Amino acid sequence: MKKNCELGEIAGVLRNANRFLVMSHVRPDGDAYGCELAMALCLRELGKDVTVWNEDGMLDRYRFMPGSGLVERPSAEPRDFEVAICLDTAVQDRIGSCWGSVRSAGCWINIDHHITNNHYGDLAYVDASAPAAGQILYELFAGQGLPLTRDMAANLYVAISTDTGSFRYPSTTARTYEIGAELVRLGVDVGRLSQEVYESYPRRRIELLRELLNVLRMSSGDRVASFGLDRATTARVGALPEDNEGLIDTIRAIEGVEVAAFFEEMEGGRVRVSLRSKRPEVDVSRVCAQFGGGGHTLAAGARVAGSLGEVETRVLLAIEHELART
Amino acid sequence: MKKNCELGEIAGVLRNANRFLVMSHVRPDGDAYGCELAMALCLRELGKDVTVWNEDGMLDRYRFMPGSGLVERPSAEPRDFEVAICLDTAVQDRIGSCWGSVRSAGCWINIDHHITNNHYGDLAYVDASAPAAGQILYELFAGQGLPLTRDMAANLYVAISTDTGSFRYPSTTARTYEIGAELVRLGVDVGRLSQEVYESYPRRRIELLRELLNVLRMSSGDRVASFGLDRATTARVGALPEDNEGLIDTIRAIEGVEVAAFFEEMEGGRVRVSLRSKRPEVDVSRVCAQFGGGGHTLAAGARVAGSLGEVETRVLLAIEHELART
Repeated sequence: MKKNCELGEIAGVLRNANRFLVMSHVRPDGDAYGCELAMALCLRELGKDVTVWNEDGMLDRYRFMPGSGLVERPSAEPRDFEVAICLDTAVQDRIGSCWGSVRSAGCWINIDHHITNNHYGDLAYVDASAPAAGQILYELFAGQGLPLTRDMAANLYVAISTDTGSFRYPSTTARTYEIGAELVRLGVDVGRLSQEVYESYPRRRIELLRELLNVLRMSSGDRVASFGLDRATTARVGALPEDNEGLIDTIRAIEGVEVAAFFEEMEGGRVRVSLRSKRPEVDVSRVCAQFGGGGHTLAAGARVAGSLGEVETRVLLAIEHELART
Repeated sequence: MKKNCELGEIAGVLRNANRFLVMSHVRPDGDAYGCELAMALCLRELGKDVTVWNEDGMLDRYRFMPGSGLVERPSAEPRDFEVAICLDTAVQDRIGSCWGSVRSAGCWINIDHHITNNHYGDLAYVDASAPAAGQILYELFAGQGLPLTRDMAANLYVAISTDTGSFRYPSTTARTYEIGAELVRLGVDVGRLSQEVYESYPRRRIELLRELLNVLRMSSGDRVASFGLDRATTARVGALPEDNEGLIDTIRAIEGVEVAAFFEEMEGGRVRVSLRSKRPEVDVSRVCAQFGGGGHTLAAGARVAGSLGEVETRVLLAIEHELART
């Protein structure tokens, strides 16, 4: 295991260099954007020249975050930077197409909380005990006397809140709550930010949920809950791909259910399968592997050729076999 | 406005008296139970004789809370106590049938965070700036050097987490997060408690959600989302009163919705109305006050005589008027 640099070394580079590139992983979430924006705003307070890239640009759903206008897609022409910073990014190539757009950088900084991070870069600081990369950035800014404005605090709040499921996941520590208190003291508007993050979704999503609950199916003696979404329903509701994100959690939470399954009919005669297990003994990545997919023990997926009904039947049978093992 | 007593006076009574009754409001939520149980466990640590009543007894969904076995329904025969404590209860008759079961009590203590609390009782401490009554109890126990065990901390955690929507509501203060940190230090298992509170519910609840989404109604130019639950549906799904707690948040989160309303047909030709506002300018407690109810600006309720359809129409009209004010 490589050793972490000191946060003071990173602070030194932030203070002394001038042309910075800030990046995070593809398919960005609240922690990715929160870190990118907090870092970018800090560097601007220091009077630096800052470029902020994400392969996906700025997703609409996170546009409420202060400074969101700074996030661009990587440039078509490769560019040179003094310092390139990767945040919340376990493996360097998870910055996606940003990779090809950096022709050179004098110093790579890597700040992350994923235990699998291999300390790439010239200055790497990885703390797997932090529930969010945003928590590490707070320690960096506050501990090293760097600027920490209200807008930066709002971005760190979104980062920490989203990566802890709103201060709920087992990874949440006493320090996480303490930082929450400090961010509120810096002026974070908890109610407004939380509403933007958690309590705001298009009506389409509710209509989709209704359609899905109307076809909810319990199987394997009520140990499995599943629903399927056909393309006709998607079209009728006008649903976008991101609208169904997280809906599987609604049926996963049913008492007695051990596996939740979501089947989504795609173009080209394929079905996207998402599985969630509630018990580590029931390994849904084994089930998905049988269909050419993969993932983790408790959350896995696959794309399977066949009609919606066919794929549902085959996968539910495979889940039944997996349950029989335990 | 009556003045608060000192927390020290309450602590004095807790230390000096012997036979206590602890109560909270009917249709108890996490804050009601969390306060009752934290107070009861504190008094037991002090070696006192403690009775814990709630009109609804202990609901299954909260049985995971430490000490939950202490909660009983009020006795059929009226009893005498030295001290009767009402927690999280804005109006004294909201203790429901507990009221008739207290023949006498030498001292009534009233600890609450509802702004409408009229300081009933011999010792009243009302702090409307606290997002949960559990936050006031934390200040009482910690500030007055009273016992504060891990099990008490878990109950206060559930109280505070549920009444702040998991540290999200605008009422959440820096102090709330600080107390979160202290409760974690006292040994609270954030992941387990959060899973019990937020990620575990009976299948009935999902069936109820489906029924409700099927009758979802948008009004006032899509600024209001509402649904009504009739007794026939409740009976068909086999739903218990607690199964619908929080379902209103699902429709409150729809983009563009400013007020969410839930109408529940009760026995005796009455309808329970729950309203949630997303904007402080839209005061749903004003709407509920017109129907003999009350609550907070963003969350209020009332019980209204009339048929489900009638009450829906009248309340939706009153909401439209409230919206027109802004």
